[in-house]
Amino acid sequence: MDIFKFMVPEIIFGRGTLSLIGESALRLGATRVLLVSDQGVVDSGWVDEAVRHLKDVGLEYCVWSEPTENPKDYEVDHGKELYLEAGCDAVVGVGGGSAIDAAKAVAILATNGGKIHDYEGVDKIDKPLPPLICVATTAGAAAEVTQFVIIVDTQRKVKMTIGSKSLVPDIAIIDPILLSTKDARLTANTGIDALTHAIEAYVSVASTPITDINALRAIKMITTSLRASVASRTNIEAKTNMAMASLLAGVAMSNAILGAVHAMAHPLGGLLNLPHGEVNSILLPHVMRFNLIACMDRYADIARAMGENVEGLSKRDAAEKAVEAVEGLCLDIGAKRSLSEIGLQEEYIMELSKAAAEDVCLITNPRDATVEEIAEIYRSAL
Amino acid sequence: MDIFKFMVPEIIFGRGTLSLIGESALRLGATRVLLVSDQGVVDSGWVDEAVRHLKDVGLEYCVWSEPTENPKDYEVDHGKELYLEAGCDAVVGVGGGSAIDAAKAVAILATNGGKIHDYEGVDKIDKPLPPLICVATTAGAAAEVTQFVIIVDTQRKVKMTIGSKSLVPDIAIIDPILLSTKDARLTANTGIDALTHAIEAYVSVASTPITDINALRAIKMITTSLRASVASRTNIEAKTNMAMASLLAGVAMSNAILGAVHAMAHPLGGLLNLPHGEVNSILLPHVMRFNLIACMDRYADIARAMGENVEGLSKRDAAEKAVEAVEGLCLDIGAKRSLSEIGLQEEYIMELSKAAAEDVCLITNPRDATVEEIAEIYRSAL
Repeated sequence: MDIFKFMVPEIIFGRGTLSLIGESALRLGATRVLLVSDQGVVDSGWVDEAVRHLKDVGLEYCVWSEPTENPKDYEVDHGKELYLEAGCDAVVGVGGGSAIDAAKAVAILATNGGKIHDYEGVDKIDKPLPPLICVATTAGAAAEVTQFVIIVDTQRKVKMTIGSKSLVPDIAIIDPILLSTKDARLTANTGIDALTHAIEAYVSVASTPITDINALRAIKMITTSLRASVASRTNIEAKTNMAMASLLAGVAMSNAILGAVHAMAHPLGGLLNLPHGEVNSILLPHVMRFNLIACMDRYADIARAMGENVEGLSKRDAAEKAVEAVEGLCLDIGAKRSLSEIGLQEEYIMELSKAAAEDVCLITNPRDATVEEIAEIYRSAL
Repeated sequence: MDIFKFMVPEIIFGRGTLSLIGESALRLGATRVLLVSDQGVVDSGWVDEAVRHLKDVGLEYCVWSEPTENPKDYEVDHGKELYLEAGCDAVVGVGGGSAIDAAKAVAILATNGGKIHDYEGVDKIDKPLPPLICVATTAGAAAEVTQFVIIVDTQRKVKMTIGSKSLVPDIAIIDPILLSTKDARLTANTGIDALTHAIEAYVSVASTPITDINALRAIKMITTSLRASVASRTNIEAKTNMAMASLLAGVAMSNAILGAVHAMAHPLGGLLNLPHGEVNSILLPHVMRFNLIACMDRYADIARAMGENVEGLSKRDAAEKAVEAVEGLCLDIGAKRSLSEIGLQEEYIMELSKAAAEDVCLITNPRDATVEEIAEIYRSAL
């Protein structure tokens, strides 16, 4: 165990906790809130409900729901202008990874100024952010607990990763009721995103005992609850378990960082605007096969956490069971099987591979990967 | 799973991390620090080293090392006076539970004024505390991560419990090197304190999946490392594991709260000034026997985490194995076996039992306990 740092926001978890959004904002000293969300969350009615809870405690507010999937640099500029024009003094994000990343990015610019590009990389944020509350509406992205923001640089067509302890929200609210408006496909994709967080964190070279326990428990809960959550919008027990699993996976990956799946998914989002969860679910088994020789013991742990019987198996065979378990889960929930199905063509692969090789997430991947090796993984997933 | 809140400080863990105390304080905006410690920590040289790291970054400081075991209300008043007279703007606690509790108590009074008694109970602290960094010098109390403070009311001779999210320090520094100056007895007592935190949190009625994983991992690590840590001052691997276990147990108990062991230990500290860890190690198996019928499944989990073979046993017998494992561990590390050995006499038992029945920790104990039942547990431990 080397030196490590560990940080999570104050967490409020449970059914109906969206109603605590107003008093939470008041407690942080907010008077006028920029509520950041997206059109899907507006359509599902959660923004109206959030607004009602802000009004109930006498807070002023301004709603900004422009952010799109894989939020863009120019969108963040608009959000910042609105924040300043409206005289806001706090940011509340209500959404999945995209809306919450946009909320965090606006919070950076609100007090630090400049362009979001100025903060790409690690520890570039000097001034404290305004009070920041994030409410998760999916069980997967876990942006509400992490110290990262991912924003698309539309000129370079790359996803910029911004990492800083300042990006850990003051309060994360996780209300499983909000998951009940998601369709099966979004539930599946975000669920596999959470599984990817947990698996990449567990085999990360920066893992620690405290991230390990969160990652393993998340893997267990996703294995037992994701199928049921995809199967039914109204299975609130499955939704609650998936909300908890997403939280635990987020705590693990925010502190142990990620690996090659995310390094390879980011350019697909930046260049081709493909949905992050779907991309992860396709890449995950392929990256696991590549990484397997680096961490067979840990893969065997994952197989066990996923309920596989590894009794009497060689270490290698036990590790292989983890990959099979992931493939079986993806198959059951109808996840997409290939990158070509969602629009990737061979001609993009070298450009994507070069970008992935530069992605910060590759640093903590358990196996080193050259550009050519990354290209091979993309090809295997075509 | 009902609604729950979860909160931990920013954690910095690892060998040599005491050296980060200065830059951590600077980052929180400190200019003049009140360094709170106790005579034992001064004698072991850690206060001098901490001061050196404060000086290195140009911070002014003032050292206050008056707090004694089970810190007293009048001591806290002295600390507050010193803080205000010296014009401090931040508090750094370096010590075990006593020094860190004193540091937190001074931080309360520094910005909220009044007497420490005014804050007894839950959520009585209105104003934010000054920047607060806590450095653990024992592996047990875990006050550096919790939302509690325990201070003795010397008039009433009771331990007052103060609970508030404001009491979670901004930064907790856990440096296993600092454990190398503790003798075997203190290592044993504080280690059993950590085990008690983990076990009480695991069977608490307020436990959640996120506290469970921390509690169970702590129990495992204590089982495998406490004996070796007691056996040798220089076994740094064992110290590192115990520092981690204490942290995990602290995270669990700060958020799941405690049970009857702590409810019964508090009056022993308040009335007779007995050492907290020693009292816990004596009471723990007796309380476990009392609680057993309330949570046999969870006790079986504890037995498994402690490496007991419960294959083929009835649920009740498996649960009993947990109590035996705790007794075996206490025996191996030379923990005291009875309360009479450390000065308790029968005549105090009714007064103690009445106080324990009123203690806030009893609320989350898995089995209800009357004053008479509590008295019976004390008697069994005499």
